[in-house]
Amino acid sequence: MSTSLTIIVVGATGDLARRKLFPALFACFARGHLPADVRFVGLARTALTAEAFRQKLAEGLRCEEIEAGSCSLQAGEFLQRCHYIRCEYEDAAGYTAAAAQLLHAEGGHRANRLIYLAVPPFVFGGAVRAMATSGFLPRGAATPWTRLVIEKPFGRDRASYAELAAALAAVCDEEQLFRIDHYLGKEMVQNLLVLRFANSFFEPVWQRTCISHVHIAWSEKQGVAGRAGYFDQYGILRDVMQNHLMQMLSLIAMEPPASLAADAIRDQKVAVLRAIVPLERDDLVVGQYVAATGAAQRGYLQEEGVPVSSITPTYAAAVVRVATPRWQGVPFLLTAGKGLCTARTEVRIHFRNDATLFDGVTADIPCHAVTNELLIRVQPAEKLALRIISKVPGVGMQLGSTELDLSYREKYPTQRIADAYENLLLDVIRGDRSLFIRSDELAAAWDIFTPALQQLAAQQQPPLPYAIGSCGPAALHALAATHGIFDTAELEGAP
Amino acid sequence: MSTSLTIIVVGATGDLARRKLFPALFACFARGHLPADVRFVGLARTALTAEAFRQKLAEGLRCEEIEAGSCSLQAGEFLQRCHYIRCEYEDAAGYTAAAAQLLHAEGGHRANRLIYLAVPPFVFGGAVRAMATSGFLPRGAATPWTRLVIEKPFGRDRASYAELAAALAAVCDEEQLFRIDHYLGKEMVQNLLVLRFANSFFEPVWQRTCISHVHIAWSEKQGVAGRAGYFDQYGILRDVMQNHLMQMLSLIAMEPPASLAADAIRDQKVAVLRAIVPLERDDLVVGQYVAATGAAQRGYLQEEGVPVSSITPTYAAAVVRVATPRWQGVPFLLTAGKGLCTARTEVRIHFRNDATLFDGVTADIPCHAVTNELLIRVQPAEKLALRIISKVPGVGMQLGSTELDLSYREKYPTQRIADAYENLLLDVIRGDRSLFIRSDELAAAWDIFTPALQQLAAQQQPPLPYAIGSCGPAALHALAATHGIFDTAELEGAP
Repeated sequence: MSTSLTIIVVGATGDLARRKLFPALFACFARGHLPADVRFVGLARTALTAEAFRQKLAEGLRCEEIEAGSCSLQAGEFLQRCHYIRCEYEDAAGYTAAAAQLLHAEGGHRANRLIYLAVPPFVFGGAVRAMATSGFLPRGAATPWTRLVIEKPFGRDRASYAELAAALAAVCDEEQLFRIDHYLGKEMVQNLLVLRFANSFFEPVWQRTCISHVHIAWSEKQGVAGRAGYFDQYGILRDVMQNHLMQMLSLIAMEPPASLAADAIRDQKVAVLRAIVPLERDDLVVGQYVAATGAAQRGYLQEEGVPVSSITPTYAAAVVRVATPRWQGVPFLLTAGKGLCTARTEVRIHFRNDATLFDGVTADIPCHAVTNELLIRVQPAEKLALRIISKVPGVGMQLGSTELDLSYREKYPTQRIADAYENLLLDVIRGDRSLFIRSDELAAAWDIFTPALQQLAAQQQPPLPYAIGSCGPAALHALAATHGIFDTAELEGAP
Repeated sequence: MSTSLTIIVVGATGDLARRKLFPALFACFARGHLPADVRFVGLARTALTAEAFRQKLAEGLRCEEIEAGSCSLQAGEFLQRCHYIRCEYEDAAGYTAAAAQLLHAEGGHRANRLIYLAVPPFVFGGAVRAMATSGFLPRGAATPWTRLVIEKPFGRDRASYAELAAALAAVCDEEQLFRIDHYLGKEMVQNLLVLRFANSFFEPVWQRTCISHVHIAWSEKQGVAGRAGYFDQYGILRDVMQNHLMQMLSLIAMEPPASLAADAIRDQKVAVLRAIVPLERDDLVVGQYVAATGAAQRGYLQEEGVPVSSITPTYAAAVVRVATPRWQGVPFLLTAGKGLCTARTEVRIHFRNDATLFDGVTADIPCHAVTNELLIRVQPAEKLALRIISKVPGVGMQLGSTELDLSYREKYPTQRIADAYENLLLDVIRGDRSLFIRSDELAAAWDIFTPALQQLAAQQQPPLPYAIGSCGPAALHALAATHGIFDTAELEGAP
């Protein structure tokens, strides 16, 4: 098997490539995680010399975490291995020429090729067809291999996903396809399976008799910023909830896999996704941020590129029901929003509080209002914490709520936490598919969201307005209360 | 009810009184936890003026935790309230005179009286008889009350305890008697019931299907120091294990009490103690420290006051079996020793590790060798920690053992942790008996240890020698292994 490797980024001048992919490739390269015989090829429609392309890349490379002395040396060597090919995305002839250039760069011997499709969704289908026609993307898993990495959006609903899936299946085998959800590459998300299944301690309490509800929360302080054109087409439900949050939910809620084999894990993820009751309009709260009185930040409708009458939600809360013996009756609350009061991605497992023994004892907050809670913070500042009730030190019996915690920054002060893309790109190269999404997972996730998305589209009602920088629409609390969730402070993102 | 209070320390010139009781009384006084109308009376056989007594006390008062400016003022006021009465401990006429002096100090109106018996065990019986005869210790719980606080040793075995209990019962009611085990006043020991019963999270895993074994460990680096005369009469099994460690064990192993009422808690403690299989010689390892080669510290037999052929153990390990449905098959390992490599008192709950999913994955230590463990450190540096297996941050899947923890020093940096005696003295004054030992508890604890103590006495074999400063006799590991406990590092006190 050839150990020569070519990594091709299609859409190399775009935001994702510049801000995420090339910096991640540089980090992998500088740390010695890539084969010695590796090269990086940017492909895009812009006319650019190799030198100009390298100049653009150089600006995005981060040195802060690489040994100071060696960084400029490493960066120089990395950039030397970067090539640029100009090509129209849907032009088969262009890809034929590109293929010849690749082979030349590879010294005449075909290398393993990783093609990362970082192009707008509307050229997905056309691009892969053209690649296939031209021989740029040969079908099959033979070595030297060609693997195709694609990223969301994977369609807009069940039907459009089926179309995309068909277009991909027409040109390449499932084994060649790596569907990225970059949240699966994040340190704490990777840790979810370890926490659940390498620690016998958690399994007995990881179920309906012990857990009252689960909250998976995603928030950003900023609005849509420069991505309004893309975002308005999709909205928060498709951009964040159907993919990132459902992926996290499936790792929290899945049954134990029989092994760590990629398909053993993904079989269980699909099983739990299929056990979720599809969402209806009433299971949702949707919102859209507006300018706050006297504040400088714009409302969503004032963002450049957003139609003045857009009803695209920038906030959503959903209550998901998982109809398995483990989770029957346990609501999973999902919240996601832009322009909010906090910026965080975290999972909070709330345990039932049936303890009454200490009900009469003085406490900083009434005991029945405190539940044991396991916090898994994905970002920022990775952290695990178990909230418990404990005696407040000192004379007399007073109870208080406190935490057993593990802050990564404190526990691993010198350990670098890799960017999600680094982890995932290395997995593609190794051929480890555990952290990539199988087609049936996506289909199942769309099945959950499609009815509610269709009802929203049919209603054509504006989402609930919320001031940018606020904690989102108050309707969240009513929705949560309907399902027996009353922890107001936590819902709003209290630390 | 009178709120005037007299606290009488019988044996006021002894070690316990000077080092522990008066400093604790001062701390309670300075913090305003005592009634305004309070006085402190030292009673002992030595001829001392009140001034000389106050001078002795003053040296032991600690100011570091009291507001700097007010300490000398407070100390002055405290010492003004300290009186001294000379009295032979077993002399009824002496107590009659003392009672008159008390009434005089109380201004002619009988106050509530707390009598703390801090005298050597061999005068216990005689002292209480003389007190009763003289009217110094009136029987009954009428107000103004008279309460008697006594501390270990409570006999040497079941029979001698029964004698002591009978002597006490002959002169005072159970309601007047407060049997102290000062470990029950320690912050973390007080927290045990809170952890177990205010947190629903722990109850489902707090039993045999989830817990493999429990280790309750007590160690001191120093030898018997100045206490050899007393210690040699009792040995580590009676001095530490039968009382402090069994009390902690009963709090860990008891069933939930119906309420926080003192007798509801103590009923359950007695129930679990009675369910423990009495120890036989084979369930024990006993040791005695010897001088280490080239080290300055003396061996036990060289300590002043120790007979040259003493076979008193300074170290013991015992495996205790609790025959209840909750604990059947779960060994409780108790270790206690002086002259060891560590100084700590802690409980470690080791959970079973049935997780096999990650068996093939790289780990800093093999996963099957790591168990989830809940550490409750009583001293030094109070701490709670839950050991878990987690992904080591960084590229690739590597597992490591780490902790979710709560260090009191970090979490409560400004909170003063009261000395155990402060907590317990205040409980006596309040009449809260939850943290005091009921007579049937002691009887049950002696029932557990008496057979093994008798066998040891009959065998007359020297304990296993271990070098002072070492981690104790190696035979511990064989005993532990017999019960399926193989965690060598933890047994020896690794942090």
